[in-house]
Amino acid sequence: MDKKQIPYKIYLSENELPREWYNLRADMQNKPAPLLDPATHKPITADALSTVFCDEAIRQELDDTTRFFKIPDIIRDFYKMYRPAPLIRAYCLEEKLGTPAKIYYKFEGNNTSGSHKLNSAIAQAYYAKMQGLKGVTTETGAGQWGTALSMACAYLGLDCKVYMVKVSYEQKPHRREVMKTYGATVTPSPSPDTVVGRKILAAHPGTSGSLGCAISEAVEVATNTDGYRYVLGSVLNQVMLHQSVIGLETKTALDKYGEKADIVIGCAGGGSNLGGLIAPFMGEKLRGEADYRFVAVEPASCPSLTRGRYAYDYCDTGMVCPLAKMYTLGSGFIPAPHHSGGLRYHGMNTTLSALYDQGLMEAVSVKQTEVFEAAVEFARVEGILPAPESSHAIKVAIDEALKCKETGEEKTIVFGLTGTGYFDMLAYGKYNDGLLTDYAPTDEEIEKGFAGMPNIE
Amino acid sequence: MDKKQIPYKIYLSENELPREWYNLRADMQNKPAPLLDPATHKPITADALSTVFCDEAIRQELDDTTRFFKIPDIIRDFYKMYRPAPLIRAYCLEEKLGTPAKIYYKFEGNNTSGSHKLNSAIAQAYYAKMQGLKGVTTETGAGQWGTALSMACAYLGLDCKVYMVKVSYEQKPHRREVMKTYGATVTPSPSPDTVVGRKILAAHPGTSGSLGCAISEAVEVATNTDGYRYVLGSVLNQVMLHQSVIGLETKTALDKYGEKADIVIGCAGGGSNLGGLIAPFMGEKLRGEADYRFVAVEPASCPSLTRGRYAYDYCDTGMVCPLAKMYTLGSGFIPAPHHSGGLRYHGMNTTLSALYDQGLMEAVSVKQTEVFEAAVEFARVEGILPAPESSHAIKVAIDEALKCKETGEEKTIVFGLTGTGYFDMLAYGKYNDGLLTDYAPTDEEIEKGFAGMPNIE
Repeated sequence: MDKKQIPYKIYLSENELPREWYNLRADMQNKPAPLLDPATHKPITADALSTVFCDEAIRQELDDTTRFFKIPDIIRDFYKMYRPAPLIRAYCLEEKLGTPAKIYYKFEGNNTSGSHKLNSAIAQAYYAKMQGLKGVTTETGAGQWGTALSMACAYLGLDCKVYMVKVSYEQKPHRREVMKTYGATVTPSPSPDTVVGRKILAAHPGTSGSLGCAISEAVEVATNTDGYRYVLGSVLNQVMLHQSVIGLETKTALDKYGEKADIVIGCAGGGSNLGGLIAPFMGEKLRGEADYRFVAVEPASCPSLTRGRYAYDYCDTGMVCPLAKMYTLGSGFIPAPHHSGGLRYHGMNTTLSALYDQGLMEAVSVKQTEVFEAAVEFARVEGILPAPESSHAIKVAIDEALKCKETGEEKTIVFGLTGTGYFDMLAYGKYNDGLLTDYAPTDEEIEKGFAGMPNIE
Repeated sequence: MDKKQIPYKIYLSENELPREWYNLRADMQNKPAPLLDPATHKPITADALSTVFCDEAIRQELDDTTRFFKIPDIIRDFYKMYRPAPLIRAYCLEEKLGTPAKIYYKFEGNNTSGSHKLNSAIAQAYYAKMQGLKGVTTETGAGQWGTALSMACAYLGLDCKVYMVKVSYEQKPHRREVMKTYGATVTPSPSPDTVVGRKILAAHPGTSGSLGCAISEAVEVATNTDGYRYVLGSVLNQVMLHQSVIGLETKTALDKYGEKADIVIGCAGGGSNLGGLIAPFMGEKLRGEADYRFVAVEPASCPSLTRGRYAYDYCDTGMVCPLAKMYTLGSGFIPAPHHSGGLRYHGMNTTLSALYDQGLMEAVSVKQTEVFEAAVEFARVEGILPAPESSHAIKVAIDEALKCKETGEEKTIVFGLTGTGYFDMLAYGKYNDGLLTDYAPTDEEIEKGFAGMPNIE
């Protein structure tokens, strides 16, 4: 097919918006290990989770056999405000690199939350609303998830309490104001409002907070407040389920133009965007219908897949959440300062962890300065200013395209551009001024993180 | 037609992207008054402008008879990175308001510059490149235009020098960094680099700058530097010409679904977005083919149409630019602090001024707090967080929709949503905290602004 016959941006019609989410676990022969009850170390029951999560969310979380879940009409209507998201052919980047490879990226940043997070936020808020709840609680680090949830809650008329990691609360006042504009209550974490928060404040006065701590606070408030439940923006399998719209749309768009991906690349924090992007492609691979290479890209400063351990671990600092078998650096691992707040989680979604363990997916870690270099190169030719998180995928997509330049291979590279970097200009400013540095934990620091893990086989 | 048969977002295909810009002046019987040479007060010649502007830009500026200008292929390819822009049906806002009116908005914010400014930035940068120039200079206030021009220049490999109003340079470091990320040099204005800048710094030490002053500096640098020309993001007729893509796409999208606008609403600063949006509709009105109401919405703090004078005036503080006959508050008018930086210009595009003078367009001024109120109402149901500038149009669109609710009329309201408010969270924060106030110049202040105007009939 003539290069230019494929448009710059492939927009599906609203009719082509997926009607069902795809549950990749249903096609896995070796399922991800179940979540365990933190008290008994037995597989967790729906009942035990019901004070924390909404009922439908639990059903989706625990179901590893149903292949498709219908997307409710109200959620689908909400999706129509910003979806289908474009699959963009990176013509300008290809030309700049002089590569024979074809590069596509699925752009999830064209909405006010600035990222893919909205796909799951609206689903989780909807189920809370359907259950007759008053509101939801959550944590947010960089702020994308908190923003997305605030938007979803404003739309449905649901109360929204966000615990925002204190360092982000202070350094990202703009994010905070977006959430408040959408009617959310935003509290810096750790806060004196919760037992967990008070404990941490007493032990570490002046702490700038962590995602694990903010999770514990949000969970505590949800379980102790009538009519509230907790929602989470990544890591969980229900989130990956909702994010499958990314991959489903991507596949439909490629199929429409007779294109087949050779490599699918995504940045990996908790894993939901990566999982959502690769889901339908991985499904084909699992069913033996097609083959693809999958590459998870993580920051060198928080390398859960490439340097972590595959074991049961705590999901939060307060150890109140279920235990998950995943690639993890230990819930006590504190990643060095790094400007991709969305990739600073110590663990990885259990499904992706299982796939990686089974050799079905590759992983690579990259340094922050080379990520910003790729981001700027991309921005200058493709126009879009990418989020630092998303730029991890850009970096590896460029590397793969340059390999094709050497070998002359005309591979089709697809990557997920999860969001925009408008709220990351402090980091870009540092990069522009040559002040950005690289961090990677030492082996000792990695070992220290492992030390606090539970011992469960 | 059943309401829901029209999609939430009407996306035209790349083939439907306009191939020509539409020059509204060609259809006007009473043309806008010509620009005058500041020295001779005679209509300015192409030759006299050639040290300031690119040749093709001058040709477009002075041509009021050619109806269509072909959009060069390279510009059209660039447009494809973010255009056609969606025409969005505001189903959720309609439902929220309970109005029988149909509300559409043309959303120009889905690109990194965050606004419609890119439409003209790429055109002006392209003509500079084609003329073999090294670079361009410009001014920027809120930063949208500077960002857009930086993006266009990065794409074409052209140098870009931006003079940024000092108060914005300091209060909007994020905007500044976006421009630097795209390779632009950003200088706070007034600066010691120019004669004009030094003069103003001497007269007003500690001044926070103004758009008029930044324009003078950028013009001075362009005329004194080999291989550079000056480009401007609004006010000029060439800019309105480029911005006609907004209106052309809007009309194509409406026609496609058999919809006809009754009212077309846009915010008005220098006038380029408003002019671009209404151009093809106004053309039909001028040719007697259809009738529409047009409403220009300006801030009460800078009311050039509703309280200004229709007369020849200076376009910049330094009085180095041609004189324009326009609705103006006087080039010495200093608008009170206001959070819509893009609407703080003292004058109005000459074409729009002529149309307003001829009674073909209405104008209304609105207060900043009611604008933010409308912005938040819109954001919560439509998802998109609008720029304060764009929210002026939202405010009046909502007012018109509520009038329809009273009368039961099923009017079709179309407004321009020119951009996003991601870089305006300081202002939203003030609104959230109840700290936003309203300003309107007193009659004395208005008279004072008029005092410095040239006396030309």
